[in-house]
Amino acid sequence: MSWNTFGRVLRLTTWGESHGPAIGGVLDGCPPGIALSEADIQPFLDARRPGQNRYTTQRQEADAVRILSGVFEGRTTGTPISLLIENTDQRSKDYGEIADTYRPGHADYAYDAKYGFRDYRGGGRSSARETAMRVAAGAIARLIIPEVRVQAFVSAIGGDAAQTFDADEIARNPFWSADAAAAVRWAERLDRARKEGSSLGAVVECHAHGVPAGWGAPLYAKLDADLAGAMMGINAVKGVEIGAGFGAAALSGEDNADAMSPGGQGPEFASNHAGGIAGGISTGQPITCRVAFKPTSSILTPVASITRTGEAAAVSTRGRHDPCVGIRGTPVVEAMMALVLVDHKLLHRAQCG
Amino acid sequence: MSWNTFGRVLRLTTWGESHGPAIGGVLDGCPPGIALSEADIQPFLDARRPGQNRYTTQRQEADAVRILSGVFEGRTTGTPISLLIENTDQRSKDYGEIADTYRPGHADYAYDAKYGFRDYRGGGRSSARETAMRVAAGAIARLIIPEVRVQAFVSAIGGDAAQTFDADEIARNPFWSADAAAAVRWAERLDRARKEGSSLGAVVECHAHGVPAGWGAPLYAKLDADLAGAMMGINAVKGVEIGAGFGAAALSGEDNADAMSPGGQGPEFASNHAGGIAGGISTGQPITCRVAFKPTSSILTPVASITRTGEAAAVSTRGRHDPCVGIRGTPVVEAMMALVLVDHKLLHRAQCG
Amino acid sequence: MSWNTFGRVLRLTTWGESHGPAIGGVLDGCPPGIALSEADIQPFLDARRPGQNRYTTQRQEADAVRILSGVFEGRTTGTPISLLIENTDQRSKDYGEIADTYRPGHADYAYDAKYGFRDYRGGGRSSARETAMRVAAGAIARLIIPEVRVQAFVSAIGGDAAQTFDADEIARNPFWSADAAAAVRWAERLDRARKEGSSLGAVVECHAHGVPAGWGAPLYAKLDADLAGAMMGINAVKGVEIGAGFGAAALSGEDNADAMSPGGQGPEFASNHAGGIAGGISTGQPITCRVAFKPTSSILTPVASITRTGEAAAVSTRGRHDPCVGIRGTPVVEAMMALVLVDHKLLHRAQCG
Amino acid sequence: MSWNTFGRVLRLTTWGESHGPAIGGVLDGCPPGIALSEADIQPFLDARRPGQNRYTTQRQEADAVRILSGVFEGRTTGTPISLLIENTDQRSKDYGEIADTYRPGHADYAYDAKYGFRDYRGGGRSSARETAMRVAAGAIARLIIPEVRVQAFVSAIGGDAAQTFDADEIARNPFWSADAAAAVRWAERLDRARKEGSSLGAVVECHAHGVPAGWGAPLYAKLDADLAGAMMGINAVKGVEIGAGFGAAALSGEDNADAMSPGGQGPEFASNHAGGIAGGISTGQPITCRVAFKPTSSILTPVASITRTGEAAAVSTRGRHDPCVGIRGTPVVEAMMALVLVDHKLLHRAQCG
Repeated sequence: MSWNTFGRVLRLTTWGESHGPAIGGVLDGCPPGIALSEADIQPFLDARRPGQNRYTTQRQEADAVRILSGVFEGRTTGTPISLLIENTDQRSKDYGEIADTYRPGHADYAYDAKYGFRDYRGGGRSSARETAMRVAAGAIARLIIPEVRVQAFVSAIGGDAAQTFDADEIARNPFWSADAAAAVRWAERLDRARKEGSSLGAVVECHAHGVPAGWGAPLYAKLDADLAGAMMGINAVKGVEIGAGFGAAALSGEDNADAMSPGGQGPEFASNHAGGIAGGISTGQPITCRVAFKPTSSILTPVASITRTGEAAAVSTRGRHDPCVGIRGTPVVEAMMALVLVDHKLLHRAQCG
Repeated sequence: MSWNTFGRVLRLTTWGESHGPAIGGVLDGCPPGIALSEADIQPFLDARRPGQNRYTTQRQEADAVRILSGVFEGRTTGTPISLLIENTDQRSKDYGEIADTYRPGHADYAYDAKYGFRDYRGGGRSSARETAMRVAAGAIARLIIPEVRVQAFVSAIGGDAAQTFDADEIARNPFWSADAAAAVRWAERLDRARKEGSSLGAVVECHAHGVPAGWGAPLYAKLDADLAGAMMGINAVKGVEIGAGFGAAALSGEDNADAMSPGGQGPEFASNHAGGIAGGISTGQPITCRVAFKPTSSILTPVASITRTGEAAAVSTRGRHDPCVGIRGTPVVEAMMALVLVDHKLLHRAQCG
Repeated sequence: MSWNTFGRVLRLTTWGESHGPAIGGVLDGCPPGIALSEADIQPFLDARRPGQNRYTTQRQEADAVRILSGVFEGRTTGTPISLLIENTDQRSKDYGEIADTYRPGHADYAYDAKYGFRDYRGGGRSSARETAMRVAAGAIARLIIPEVRVQAFVSAIGGDAAQTFDADEIARNPFWSADAAAAVRWAERLDRARKEGSSLGAVVECHAHGVPAGWGAPLYAKLDADLAGAMMGINAVKGVEIGAGFGAAALSGEDNADAMSPGGQGPEFASNHAGGIAGGISTGQPITCRVAFKPTSSILTPVASITRTGEAAAVSTRGRHDPCVGIRGTPVVEAMMALVLVDHKLLHRAQCG
Repeated sequence: MSWNTFGRVLRLTTWGESHGPAIGGVLDGCPPGIALSEADIQPFLDARRPGQNRYTTQRQEADAVRILSGVFEGRTTGTPISLLIENTDQRSKDYGEIADTYRPGHADYAYDAKYGFRDYRGGGRSSARETAMRVAAGAIARLIIPEVRVQAFVSAIGGDAAQTFDADEIARNPFWSADAAAAVRWAERLDRARKEGSSLGAVVECHAHGVPAGWGAPLYAKLDADLAGAMMGINAVKGVEIGAGFGAAALSGEDNADAMSPGGQGPEFASNHAGGIAGGISTGQPITCRVAFKPTSSILTPVASITRTGEAAAVSTRGRHDPCVGIRGTPVVEAMMALVLVDHKLLHRAQCG
């Protein structure tokens, strides 16, 4: 089945293939009266845009977004917002050779198994190019929750974890690293990986500050459950943690407990192993999650595979690919966080006023 | 907002509080003509049932399920199946003292912040007692996918990981451990934790064998995204991994690649770092996921907290609690896996016939 | 497919068969803090209850509703409200003879064609008995919109239309007639029909006063579209009109126009051909709709039919049936109106605050 | 709330305003492998297109549809199909004068009441221009149900009903009339109405032949309930009937009964008062419904109204408007029928295989 809509009351529907004429999205349910223009969205797309430095794919896409509906005289009208980005640098010749061979780690075989055939150009619908629309919608979502600040950063590449956190560093290096020293090491690692025709995985961490206590829709749209689904649905993601995550599984009850004490507004918490969510509902602490990206599947190093007709083949992907998809995934993680939070803000308002 | 329905075409709606008269669920969308009676469900409930050994809560619940609709002359009719379990051992006096104090790690404060007040008896709606309904529905789900075998087991307790895997071991020890030696160690750890008034976290692993290639609903109901949401929504879960999970983030592209070679039906895969899912669609490999449970929040060791009126307080939970909720969470993980798989089987059939 | 959930944010899921042990419903998404007990629901069930006079079926059901969850200390908690009514007067022997023959006008053949078999006892899931749950849920819905007054009445039976409207009359006769003279005529008609082994259709009209301007979710959850779906989904309903309905199709533009003039709050309207809805959004005028009920299909007069195995047969339904289902359908129409309005109140609040 | 998605498994999301740069739609859930190009859609858009004769608005729109995604090498891929139509003849000067005055019968006031302001150009989102997307999606829907033939026709204009039915007539006159004599009368009526600055309502009837028994999703997505919602959601529709509709309310049980006799495949029915649906499920008979369109609200004859600031005003709409919106609504009725039927075909397949 095809299911290209995300969210319950703020709903994003995306469409488009990597090498079709355009990609787009429809954001429905946005509150009316919010000041919005392309200029509010473009900086977030630019942050995700390919071709910006040697650690990302050299595909050149302007990724210039157009708003086709839902905004009048500079404000949202409450009707669906249609977003469109034309595909300008398609070079489908790059991909023609993989029409008949399944790239390991890609969705090629799975799409064929499901649908009987596939748009093989650049991965078609399964291409991460679609995430541009998530980022665009996320930029709008941020405007609906001005009380919340969402920030993601890369906390490990290729198993090499950052050691320090300086929020001001994040925008200063091409890796969204909050640790300047780690950024230097990662640059070397990625240069080496690229030369070797290899690629690296990454861990992205995301924090949302300013979420009030009370957002979340127990039991089957818990805030953490929705975040986990949202993050796991990003291309190349294989793991999601909320708060202490897998680390909590190794703790004792008293070490994991987030002790509370009287605070100004609501409790003060001595720690945040819960990641700001209890019983699927926000507690007023920062929402924290960690997301694992696998290494880019498209690598120059040959990997054994098969053809559509079942013959053995070796796949070596020459195209233009990110050596570490987690880097450009960082703005996507932020976007999904923002979309989930808005949805829950509106759901909470629906039931509880 | 309250959102107590799970699934898209096979939909489970649950209701009930820990200390109300009963808990229940309505399973809608079940195919007609499937042989079904309470006897098909009860064994799975018994596996999750409390009070079975000293490693689980001593609350005594028969957890006898009744089918109130949707079955006629021993077969499902295609109409909603209503399931009901009466609460028999409620002892609400156990909980009266916590009406005015927030238990750290519990949903008490979050529910109050959201709804203004809460049913404090035994955690009310946020109690893990609700998961009995997931297990009951999961038992029915299994009957809809006889081609699939779902099996979960505990792979670590308190940070102590199992080292071997013997499927026959799983049912032989009270921990759903596939490693007999680990079970011995865990018994000691849990005895110690209980004596110390503490608790331990756990990691549960779940495999689904027999899922054909092609299930999954890209892009916003990807099979892995739905699994992640389903698992993260289980009480006490803080992390979910598909396939290699966070480990994949530390691998190189060539090490993470699941090489393919010609097989009898579809490809043979040299490894399964993908956990049986690519692009959100099953590949025919076993679906694998790992789920992190935090340690039980209800512990005897006092933890600092606050009262409803904002005074400092220390909480020491005396009730009857599992020292490690991950153990009884294991059948719940299996149930959620089964429910997600059925939903995607039916969704795939809807679109692709 | 089975789809037994109604509504978007206030969601009602019902279950149960006419001759099973019970019927029930789960109402999810109800705002917290609303005073609620069975006593708030029972009067509405009593209004719909069978066996009250000679114009309704003589089946004797106490229809005593129990609330099993979602209410604590007399107030809604914001978690799902489970409602249950036991079936006490089942007499399945009444229906045994129709197990193998399709009753014309009933769902018997359609259910068999869809599901392969059916629970034939009293119509099983297709029985109007299910509407008791709609009425129970509607009673709760009313409490969420105290600003709105919903009132339905029968405006025609067997083609004989009421001529006057006196709201005080409605509760004074067994037909929910606002026209005392019509009630006298209808009594004669129904007595005659029953003696002849026949039945009559009816038109029910429903008004909702106090709905503010602004409720409705264009374009695919328009308030009128949702009302139409809700009403057409009631057993035996074959037509729905909003405002002037089919009459509008015979008017000229200037005669159909609801002229506006300056009013105290919002416009004053000179007429209400629109039925209080424009562009799918409420205008502040009363919401009005008309609903056509076909005559009861279960009649003593024999009708040609076939058996399950395709043999010719004549069906004469002896059971205990309403000679005019529209009468007892009146409280159901009110309930569906209330459920739709609450859903849209909450949806509006979600988006527009 | 904004809710611009229609359908459960085949889902259409539309966007766009009458005078924005374009309108569009995303059709998700379409089965893969269906041959599809713009040429399959354009004829249906042409049938609805304005400016074709003197009985429809003289706005000139090419309504040339483009497929931007979801089709590869001439076949649907199973991924979302994005459809786009550019608005070419916008003339927003026509509408500038109504920015501050509410047109009676239009959504102007309701949109302002809901959202605080509105895109007033040509009705913005509430314009019937959006129905072009329904028609485009309906054209694709037809390809998914080749076993079904959907045909709508106008059966009354201004209260003047057609008397005969000749399917071959329908395409021969500008009114989709199956009665040649009625078409002559209607031409005169409409000429007169236009000269008088008036407009007329219409009744559209729609039949679907070839629907097998078994489609429909009781109880809250009954086939007739979904049809009623779909039809009532079309601009200007005020009433919907299935089968005998309101006429059934005036019949006796034996006259309304559709007697059955043994047939070749399934029963033969002596009549079709049920409109092909029983218990919300198709019976194998033709699905029939009737839809009432109110007269066009935009008329030259002045109607009393108010301004945004609450002053009295008279509105006389000079623009280019259909004197009878029901005519161009006919292809829209067909499209909604096709969309509902496909959704239920796929839902049925999901549950029942």
